[in-house]
Amino acid sequence: MNKQIFMDLLEKKEFKAVRSILEVMNTVDIAALLADLEDKELIQAFRLIEKSKAADVFAQMSSSMQVYLVEMFTEKELQELLNDLYMDDTVDLLEELPANLVTRILDHVSKEKRDQINTILNYPEDSAGSIMTTEYVDLKKTTTVKEAMAHIKETGIRKETIYTCYILENRRLIGIVSAKDLMTMDDDLQMEELMETEIISVTTHTDQEETARLFAKYDLLALPVLDMQGYMVGIVTIDDALDVIVDETTEDMEIMNALNPSEKTYFETSVAVHAKNRIGWLLVLMLSATITQTIIARYEAAFAALPLLVSFIPMLTDTGGNCGSQSSTLVIRGLALDEIHFQDIFRVVFKEFRVALLVGVVLAVTNGIYIMVRYHDPMMAVLIAISLTATIIMAKIIGCILPLFAKKLHVDPAIMAAPLITTIVDAGSILIYFQVATHLLGMV
Amino acid sequence: MNKQIFMDLLEKKEFKAVRSILEVMNTVDIAALLADLEDKELIQAFRLIEKSKAADVFAQMSSSMQVYLVEMFTEKELQELLNDLYMDDTVDLLEELPANLVTRILDHVSKEKRDQINTILNYPEDSAGSIMTTEYVDLKKTTTVKEAMAHIKETGIRKETIYTCYILENRRLIGIVSAKDLMTMDDDLQMEELMETEIISVTTHTDQEETARLFAKYDLLALPVLDMQGYMVGIVTIDDALDVIVDETTEDMEIMNALNPSEKTYFETSVAVHAKNRIGWLLVLMLSATITQTIIARYEAAFAALPLLVSFIPMLTDTGGNCGSQSSTLVIRGLALDEIHFQDIFRVVFKEFRVALLVGVVLAVTNGIYIMVRYHDPMMAVLIAISLTATIIMAKIIGCILPLFAKKLHVDPAIMAAPLITTIVDAGSILIYFQVATHLLGMV
Repeated sequence: MNKQIFMDLLEKKEFKAVRSILEVMNTVDIAALLADLEDKELIQAFRLIEKSKAADVFAQMSSSMQVYLVEMFTEKELQELLNDLYMDDTVDLLEELPANLVTRILDHVSKEKRDQINTILNYPEDSAGSIMTTEYVDLKKTTTVKEAMAHIKETGIRKETIYTCYILENRRLIGIVSAKDLMTMDDDLQMEELMETEIISVTTHTDQEETARLFAKYDLLALPVLDMQGYMVGIVTIDDALDVIVDETTEDMEIMNALNPSEKTYFETSVAVHAKNRIGWLLVLMLSATITQTIIARYEAAFAALPLLVSFIPMLTDTGGNCGSQSSTLVIRGLALDEIHFQDIFRVVFKEFRVALLVGVVLAVTNGIYIMVRYHDPMMAVLIAISLTATIIMAKIIGCILPLFAKKLHVDPAIMAAPLITTIVDAGSILIYFQVATHLLGMV
Repeated sequence: MNKQIFMDLLEKKEFKAVRSILEVMNTVDIAALLADLEDKELIQAFRLIEKSKAADVFAQMSSSMQVYLVEMFTEKELQELLNDLYMDDTVDLLEELPANLVTRILDHVSKEKRDQINTILNYPEDSAGSIMTTEYVDLKKTTTVKEAMAHIKETGIRKETIYTCYILENRRLIGIVSAKDLMTMDDDLQMEELMETEIISVTTHTDQEETARLFAKYDLLALPVLDMQGYMVGIVTIDDALDVIVDETTEDMEIMNALNPSEKTYFETSVAVHAKNRIGWLLVLMLSATITQTIIARYEAAFAALPLLVSFIPMLTDTGGNCGSQSSTLVIRGLALDEIHFQDIFRVVFKEFRVALLVGVVLAVTNGIYIMVRYHDPMMAVLIAISLTATIIMAKIIGCILPLFAKKLHVDPAIMAAPLITTIVDAGSILIYFQVATHLLGMV
């Protein structure tokens, strides 16, 4: 859909045409289209969306658009929206609203729904409880396939997903039946005969990243959430799990590159907030670099005697930084994907040590040849070869150990990535370099 | 399940117990459990898995386990496996097998299936065609809900997903009906009356990453794949899309940290392959650093006169590298998530310039104070403040521009990350530093 045409039609009040366009579009694209409208046009366009789609479109909108719409809604419109909105989307909305609007919304929902909302709002941020929805299909173990299908026909349209059905006994989850089973099995079979009893579930307090990982591992469409007493309280659906995976990955990449993670997109974030998100780590790393500075200052005599020494510093520190960040990236990602654990530390270190030796020899020889060709200086070649190999071994071992210890200490391993590793490795490599230089070249 | 107990039971030939254990476990966990077995125990254990689960477990195994099992299978076992394996898993298997085993497998499948396999094998690597499956539910537009349900009951068990049904007319896709619609709508309605006609689809040649992104954007469970003539040839399911998202992210992170991406896990990769995956970029970056080296060598006189100059080099280059990688990370991720496009280049550069100014001033002032306190040297404080601010502006602009141009030139933007940006920014920051120094301090 061409945005300009749509906006022109809206401006010319061609509401019938606008309505027809909105009718054939899917809810995601409508939300994207509406994002470009001015506030007044936004509420106008939103009112032209057919009733059955409106809540879905609303759920796809940015929170600033949602807040504006809620402010503009009549009581009746608000009531209709809240009736159609799924529980997880309702909670997402409330988290963004100012207090007076929260009160207004809570006035419009039933006591039962209000209690559910308050419970979910109280779960820790980034927990399974905070992203779950409370609408799911529950059945009894004596229900037959035919009865289950009839029950879904009656109530299913108000459930976020009907593709996994939960068999409860005294509010406890005792089995799972898929819609595929219901659609392909004999009508008279009871749930008890069909249900899968080896259930993968999480608790309300399970971290959302861990929850999302279970979807990828077990190819799930939905995952039941139990409270601390073991009662079933909701489900997390695959669409929310997918969002968590994408968001958590972005967060990891940002942390790994000295950025405070932001939930907004690049353009949604203001210049001031961008600067704020970047200055913190830069300051820490800049001030940490004073250690390297102090080390260099101690060796003034050495490079005053042999100025060529200085020109190799960036090559040496960069190579060290790159080697360290290679190792830390592999370990950080391995930890995130549950492929590496703290108890593997000795295996990892031993592996990195051997890799470092191989890499070190290849790089040292290449650099040695380069120095011989360019400077015809065998002593310098040997100095750089030794420093380079030692730096690479140190960098790779620091690079793999720090994320593992971070994990052990419940600190996000992503912090132990390129920027911090580089700063630490810098100090080490400069120390190695000048130590080797003073010994090898007989300086003080 | 405790692995040791399982292995003990297997060794003691307690097959009945082993079979019961395998019966209650899910296929993913069985595959993980079997991964630790020796070859001979592996085939033994695999034969104890109940028929209805065996193909699913097989599909979850590593390719080396799959190859071994295919070699050991009797003709009858191979036939059974191929009957139960979905098309996408069959193709995955064939891609890993040596030629003689491929021939053996193709001998066991029907002509029709063989043709399908060959077609899929010919699609480009990492395309939607290469990850799709050909088993899906297709219906006619005149089919009623009741007829559709009966059809699924009859054939659905052999389809990878039945939750999205495709309405075809002369092999062309004209609509989509969800299982939720079928389960909640009136029995007599025809597909034509129910179906969604605004269809999101991909072609066989669409990149798998782009395909996967559509799942996240539109909350899909399956996505139809059309061939170049517009005929429907298969579907991609959410579980495969999720795997693509996780794998592509790992690949991006690896490329962004100077690693050749590897499809195997950290421990599955040998020391030699780890070294090979790392040496290439390290060599390129190390040799690029000779540019910086040459620049430094030109200013020998300057730091011979004022050795203190040298000690600030790592702080300056590291800060430049970190600033550049912050910007490049945000742009690379924004490009991957389709939030930033090449035509935004001026908006991005202008934003980065303003962010750089803010960040530059804060860092320059902090560093100026530090230098005044430590060295009581106002000239040095001014020199560092100017160099730092100029470096930060340069780094942020290079950091945001390079990934955008890479995208434009169809090169993976992830290459333009920390390591390469650091190397380029190093040369620039050293040049700025010594230029400012020679002018400010009146050196040559």
